This record gives sequence, structure tokens and C-alpha cells, in this order.
Amino acid sequence: MEEEQLHALLRDLDALKQRPDDLGSIDRDMSAEVVDSNPYSRLMALQRMGVVENYERIRDYSVAIVGIGGVGSVAAEMLTRCGIGRLLLYDYDTVELANMNRLFFRPEQVGMTKTDAAVQTLSGINPDVVLESYSLNITTVKGFETFLASLKARSSHERSTGVDLVLSCVDNYEARMVVNQACNELGQTWMESGVSEDAVSGHIQLLVPGETACFACAPPLVVASGVDERTLKREGVCAASLPTTMGVVAGLLVQNALKYLLNFGQVSPYLGYNSLKDYFPTMEMRPNPQCSNPACVERQKEYMDCKPARDAAAKAKMEAEASEANECPVHLDNEWNISVVDDEETATSNVRSTPDILPEGLVRELPAADLYPEPPATTSSSALDDDLEELQRQLDALNSS
Amino acid sequence: MEEEQLHALLRDLDALKQRPDDLGSIDRDMSAEVVDSNPYSRLMALQRMGVVENYERIRDYSVAIVGIGGVGSVAAEMLTRCGIGRLLLYDYDTVELANMNRLFFRPEQVGMTKTDAAVQTLSGINPDVVLESYSLNITTVKGFETFLASLKARSSHERSTGVDLVLSCVDNYEARMVVNQACNELGQTWMESGVSEDAVSGHIQLLVPGETACFACAPPLVVASGVDERTLKREGVCAASLPTTMGVVAGLLVQNALKYLLNFGQVSPYLGYNSLKDYFPTMEMRPNPQCSNPACVERQKEYMDCKPARDAAAKAKMEAEASEANECPVHLDNEWNISVVDDEETATSNVRSTPDILPEGLVRELPAADLYPEPPATTSSSALDDDLEELQRQLDALNSS
Repeated sequence: MEEEQLHALLRDLDALKQRPDDLGSIDRDMSAEVVDSNPYSRLMALQRMGVVENYERIRDYSVAIVGIGGVGSVAAEMLTRCGIGRLLLYDYDTVELANMNRLFFRPEQVGMTKTDAAVQTLSGINPDVVLESYSLNITTVKGFETFLASLKARSSHERSTGVDLVLSCVDNYEARMVVNQACNELGQTWMESGVSEDAVSGHIQLLVPGETACFACAPPLVVASGVDERTLKREGVCAASLPTTMGVVAGLLVQNALKYLLNFGQVSPYLGYNSLKDYFPTMEMRPNPQCSNPACVERQKEYMDCKPARDAAAKAKMEAEASEANECPVHLDNEWNISVVDDEETATSNVRSTPDILPEGLVRELPAADLYPEPPATTSSSALDDDLEELQRQLDALNSS
Repeated sequence: MEEEQLHALLRDLDALKQRPDDLGSIDRDMSAEVVDSNPYSRLMALQRMGVVENYERIRDYSVAIVGIGGVGSVAAEMLTRCGIGRLLLYDYDTVELANMNRLFFRPEQVGMTKTDAAVQTLSGINPDVVLESYSLNITTVKGFETFLASLKARSSHERSTGVDLVLSCVDNYEARMVVNQACNELGQTWMESGVSEDAVSGHIQLLVPGETACFACAPPLVVASGVDERTLKREGVCAASLPTTMGVVAGLLVQNALKYLLNFGQVSPYLGYNSLKDYFPTMEMRPNPQCSNPACVERQKEYMDCKPARDAAAKAKMEAEASEANECPVHLDNEWNISVVDDEETATSNVRSTPDILPEGLVRELPAADLYPEPPATTSSSALDDDLEELQRQLDALNSS
């Protein structure tokens, strides 16, 4: 067995020797040149096609991924291949053969920490990405301190933390509550993901402290009831998992992250995936004014206090854009629908309608979603309020019993 | 640069040496034992949880994947990690750095054929899977012959071909029409997949010759009009692609394949993915009696001829199952809801409702889809008939002009 792997390694080595010389000359700039040796040509094409205004901006972004398991490792690989600027990876676990039914890790990495194994693979895939490996448990006091400090490092005048987005890819509620605490404290936008214990459904969710519900605003019953979830696990019993479900959830999560960072399409507040019926529920959750998390309540207050200023800014921006559009007509022969944008323009809107004009010979795979009725929102605002009140009642009953 | 990779290789070698001894002793049987060294424990858990009746059956299945690109390579990795019996891989292309923005291939594989590079990676991930590499172009006369012959090899009394499912993961219509031709000739069930040129949408589709529309029943306009799609490509212009969209499409495709092969959940006839709005349209397409493909029309006739026998068999099976259910009550203390099934039972139904009972301490990630209204079907049968007639008229007009 080991001999076979050695042969494979030698074959790899031969392949390395035959590697084209131009590999070493990858530019720090993302080239849009359409040649086989350009790893970014297919990504820069998004810009030429009018999907993304400025793809290269991805180099400026830092993303933290908490939990480098079946979802987190694939999310990290996707962002690495997309050319993200910096990735911070957090996990306390080591690679086991029992992880081989999900994508990413390889049998020869068994025994390595998941973060080190990830850095090994990812740096080989794209040496342009800055990778930071944190092999620690964020649910311990020391781990939490390091987690917070690493998020805050490299903060700039544009943001309070050093990262643009946190992706939670953990497999338990305790860790989710810790990510929630950190992000509420820092006012850090994050996205949460999860896959069910029976491996056939999952979800992603956007959490903006003060603006959307936080993870404690409407906690799962196992969290609300205060039961230690570890006591629910039994000897000889494990959760099921599938590379398909986890690959889909990772893909939906990173797609949402790209839409958020690069400002295209609609960022989904919540998207579920029921694989047995290929059903994808969506909903929105507003913050709970009675949330048990003090930092969340503080962010909610800040958000409400800033509402008038925010509304005025949005109105001013809309008016400026409208007058700009009147002043600068797009050239009639501009078939790619490219328009000059101000470098200083800040991304404030997550919704952008991409132009419907495609170059000659290209057809869209699907009709525009506008042509279809939207799937019904699963929770209306008033229903949500009722749910929250109901949950609060259940919680009070539990606490008083 | 090369020195760095050599160091990485040496680290791999060290990791290999530290590899646990039990790796060589992977059983040909899939163990359900919950230990870190069992690569199948999380898959066999699907059986214990009542999602899949007999997971080990996956070992008996052969799947052909045509096109080992951004979708096909990931589909191959997912099936490999799921422990599929045999994979047949078809592609004529070689790995380029321009492929690095999608999952799977690594920079050191540049220059290798995609099928050989895939076999190299996949055999390292799961040595239990039988891998067959076909580096050929199925759209050439010789390539098509080899393609057909390889699908027919190892046929058994249960099926006319040697494979259980063909997955089409190609990036052009000509190749899709060739897969369609082969599968219509052989009466081979297949699944088609695609990602749009602007990288932000995709789809998967189930095609059962004679029973559903074939790819020629309602061809895309570029096929119907007889234009050579290669003439639409321009120098210095390439399609965009994203690892996210391709990962999602691969995940939905292989999930549908697993549901079809292992007989759980609902196999989707068509599922679209619009990533800008996270919208997932579904529809069904019946075969076109005026289809331009003679083999399709022949399969349609066979399907209609067998309808009375099929209906009778389905009725008999339903009655047998109903009486069996009455005779054999499930043990009351059987918390995993396991029931004895006949080994000889053949899979005839693609729809199975999984039991709603979950073991203590486990909760479903999402509410059952039944609780939500189904998203509206995008094409009703009568609208489809109209569409086909309209298309036929357009086609006639084109041919007569």
C-alpha cells in the first residue's frame, strides 16, 4: 500500500518537473488574458460579462472560516480558488479516516490538524492567498480570546475588525453561540451554515448584528432549554454525512459570500436545502428586542439610532446615481455594457440587477427569475413575532420549572 | 517555486510514513462501526437513521461520467468518497492552469489528461473504487464507438448496459447530443447537467429514454437552428466559471444520482439553479412524439406498449407491500425504525417517504417540505405541448428558409 503511494508521489514529482515555466510568474494582479496558463481568466470573465463590476477587489478581502470540516474545508477551497486575499482558518480537530466521505481531506493527511492540512492543500492550489492557521477550540476561554484578537488584528479605518466576513461552519450549537457572541461584540457581519444529523438537509444564514436576528434571538430548542448537547450523543452512534449535501451547502454559502463581498445579485438572508424533495425555503428574521444576548440588544439600539442618517444617505445615493445615469450615456457600441465607476464608490447595496444584454452567441441558462412568481416567504413578519413570543413563553416555562 | 512544492511533497511523504497501519486493512465490506478509522461510518449511518434502506448496495453500481471538468470532476470525487463500485471517466482534454478556479485539479497536474489526473487523485482518496479512464472525444466516430462499447461492456441479465447511470457533465451542445444519441440507442437512463456561460446559473435533468423528454425532444435554439456552436466562440473571449456554481450543480447532480440508485427521497426530473436570486425552478418534460431522434421515438413506442404491464406490476407491488405491512408489524422497541427487506427486491420506485421518527436528541434541520406549498411548476403539460409545437414551427421555418 505505502509503496503504491510512493509511486504516486514519484509520478507527482515527474509532473512537477514537466510543469510549464510560466507558473512561477503568476502576477499579483489578476490578469484577464484568455490563455490556458492564466488561473484567473474564467473569474475575470465575470467582469467582462457584466456580472461583477470589479472582480479584482476580492484580493482586498479577508474571510475567517470557523470549523474546517465537511463544509468549512470546501468553503476554504472555493475562496482560495477564487483568489480571496486572506483566509483565517479555525479548528481544534485532527483529520481522521472517518472524514473521507466528505470532500477535501486526503487519506495521507490523517493525524494532521485540520487547519494545517488545509493550509498544506490550499497553499499548493493558490500561493497568492495569505493563509492563517488557528488550531484552537474557540469555546475555551483562551481559545475565545485568541479568536477575538485574530479577528480584530489588521483592522483599518473602514471597519472595526480585520476581516470582512466570518463564515461559521461548525457542527454544534455551543460553537455557534460563541461565534455569535464574538460577532455581536465586534459588530461583525457573519454567515452561518449547518447540515442536519441525517445528512439530507442544510441551510445558510446571513447575520448582521443589530440588523438581522442573531443566533440567540430565536435559539434552537436545545440551546433555549439549556441542555448540554454533548449529553445527547451516545457511544457507537454518529451523525450521518454526505459529500453532496455538504458540497451544496458550502457552494451556497460561498456564493452568498461572493455576492456580499463583490456586490452582485441578491444576498440571501436565509436559504434552506431539503435534498429529499429538492426544496429550498427562504425567509428573513428580524432581531428580537428581548434577545438574551446583551451585545445583540446593544447593536439593535445602535442600528435604530442610525436609521435616519442611513435613510438619508440611501436617498442621496439613489438621487446621485439617477442624475449620474442621466449625465453619462453608455456608448452605443459598448456591447459588454461596461461603464466607468468611481474607485471611491463604497458598496452599500447588496442588490444589483445585472444587465440583461448578453454578447452575441451567448444565452442565459435560465430565464430571469423575475419571470417566475417568488416562492412564498415561509415566515411573515407578524408570524415571526408570534413565533418569538411563543418561544419566549416556552423558555420562561422551562426556566421556571 | 519548485523547491517549495518539493518541500510539500516531502511533508506528504512524512505524513505517509505516520499513516496508521489499519489503513491497509479497509474491508471490502462497508463497516458501520463508529471509529475514527472507518471511512464509511458516516455513510452507513444513513442506513441506521432510516434514510437509505441498504447503503452497501452502492458497491454494486457503475456510473459513467462524460466530461471531467468543473462539474464532472467534483461529481467523480463525490461518488468516489461515497464508495461507488465503478466509475467510467470520459474526457479528451488536458489540465490547464485556467482550470484552477474550479475545484478538484491541482496546479501540479497541468499537462496531464483530465481522466488520468482524475484517476490519480481519486485512487488516492478511495482505493476501493474501480476506475476506468477513457481519454477520448465522444463526438468523433471512433470515440463514439469506444464510448458505446464501454457502456455496453459488463452488461448483466438485469440491464442492457454495463452501467447503471450516465452523468453528462460536458460544456457544449454537440457532446450533449452525442450522449443523448448513445443513451437513446441503449435505452440508458442518464442525467444531464449544465452551467451557464456567465457562471451564475445551472441545472440538472433526468432523462429516461421513452419516458421523459430526450435532449432532442425540445432542443435549445442553437441546436435546432443547426448553427455550429464553435463558430460562436471568439478569439480572446472565454466563458466565466465559478467553483461555487459548479460545486452546487455537481452536488445536486450526485445527490439526485444517489437518490435514484439507492432509492430514497424524490428524484428530480429537472432542477434549475439561479444563483443571483437563489431561485430553484423545477419542471417535468414529457417526450415529444415528433422528436427528430429516431431512437427516442422507438423508445417512446416501447414505453407506451409496456404501459398496461407496468401499471399492473405497480398495482401488484403496491398491494403486496400493503399486505406485507399488515402482516409484519415493526417491533415497538425498534427505535431506528429498521425493517427487514427482501434482498431480491428490485428497485422500481424512485419515491420513498422516509420515516418521520428520529432518534432521541436528534432534530431535523428543516421542517418537512410537505408543510410548505410546492413552488409552482414552471411549465404545465399543456403549455409544454404549445412550446413544442411553436418550436417545431420555428424549426420548419428555419429549414425551409
